[in-house]
Amino acid sequence: MKQITSRDNPQFKQLKKLVEQPRARREQDRILLDGAHLIDAYVAEGGVPDLLIVADGACSEDAQHTLNANPAVEQLHLPPGLFAELSPVATPTGILALAVTPRLPVPAEPVFALLLEDIQDPGNLGAILRSAAAAGVDAVYLSAACADVWSAKVLRGGQGAHFLLPLLERADLCALATAFNGQVLATSPHGAALYTLDLRQPSAFLVGNEGKGLSPALMACASVKVSIPMPGRIESLNAAAATAICLFERVRQQAR
Amino acid sequence: MKQITSRDNPQFKQLKKLVEQPRARREQDRILLDGAHLIDAYVAEGGVPDLLIVADGACSEDAQHTLNANPAVEQLHLPPGLFAELSPVATPTGILALAVTPRLPVPAEPVFALLLEDIQDPGNLGAILRSAAAAGVDAVYLSAACADVWSAKVLRGGQGAHFLLPLLERADLCALATAFNGQVLATSPHGAALYTLDLRQPSAFLVGNEGKGLSPALMACASVKVSIPMPGRIESLNAAAATAICLFERVRQQAR
Repeated sequence: MKQITSRDNPQFKQLKKLVEQPRARREQDRILLDGAHLIDAYVAEGGVPDLLIVADGACSEDAQHTLNANPAVEQLHLPPGLFAELSPVATPTGILALAVTPRLPVPAEPVFALLLEDIQDPGNLGAILRSAAAAGVDAVYLSAACADVWSAKVLRGGQGAHFLLPLLERADLCALATAFNGQVLATSPHGAALYTLDLRQPSAFLVGNEGKGLSPALMACASVKVSIPMPGRIESLNAAAATAICLFERVRQQAR
Repeated sequence: MKQITSRDNPQFKQLKKLVEQPRARREQDRILLDGAHLIDAYVAEGGVPDLLIVADGACSEDAQHTLNANPAVEQLHLPPGLFAELSPVATPTGILALAVTPRLPVPAEPVFALLLEDIQDPGNLGAILRSAAAAGVDAVYLSAACADVWSAKVLRGGQGAHFLLPLLERADLCALATAFNGQVLATSPHGAALYTLDLRQPSAFLVGNEGKGLSPALMACASVKVSIPMPGRIESLNAAAATAICLFERVRQQAR
């Protein structure tokens, strides 16, 4: 067990960089997992954290349980003020883990894929990954302009989805859509009603930016335009809500 | 046209209170609409803003269009620094409206209702309202511990849903669920599969807090327990995603 009390400590500085900079996460191939639930989900998939970081005197029952379950992992203790700089949430959980970024192999021929173009709200991106993991998506591809998928907010929104899904970042979505061995679906106001389509075959769904929608280039790669019937008078859905509806319509059809 | 240049101006102070305090919004029965899209949606439903507030020299094309479309509405011009205090977003839109809080009458016998218990994330609440408006929900009831539905973040997430939906705040959800003339559905891990239920009859959906789920008291008011089949290995969905899936399964069944 180690203790750091100064924010000038080099190890603390390096951890802070990991919180703040997507580039530092990439270069070190490391992420910070905030809270017992995320750490437990990482460990449940066979991950072993490099380090468990604990807020002195502010360790919840859940956090203590996680510490006890991982006796071989080195511990670093921080005063609550320093800990809070690494856990920028309203109510810090009292435990963080430093861990290798998981990289699940992307299948060579996915049958249920999700292609995300420039999803910028971390809450939306996290919710989309969570829905994808629940629906059994087998490959998620992200364009370079998506929010960083390993940020604290996206990890929190994903609730462990990151450890179950093959994720490919900075992906060439047009090339992947073109190469996909199955139908490639894009939501569009003038598309065929979602419920009239046969989604049991291999399917890839394209999801566009929250404000601008899909780029014309990627839209042109779709083989099927699909619209979600909306009896109400509002013109569109939140990107994460629309994605959940599409993915689970495939789940429904598969279950028949 | 009026100009304010000091943050000590009483009208400016009152507007700032409206941004910051749910209580001020309640007492004055007024909200602030941020951006041309929300203002246009309010006006499209017959609303007439009290006041249009413009950032001097930072008025977008959309904002100018909204100004031109509402020539009879009084204008207040603010320097960008003051305007930004009323529009706490990364990229201020350059236009705000002060407007009476819309109150659509709640039907005496709704047939498609949504009861929201302690939804605390403003992004989730906004997305849920947007899905509800799109699905044609005819009454939304919110418990007292929900995020304030008229805050800037929830309004932004709702994208105009607030002006289409009858909303009842600080509602007694148990009493409403008990009185509802139809089935009352609660998601629960051990419920019947969503796709096996007949949702064409009058239906009310109960949605619980993001972390804690439904309170036992409200769960006890449900007549049907429903679960969303999840082929993946994650244990639950985001509250807004789960709500979208349930509401649109009813839309799908109604469309048959």
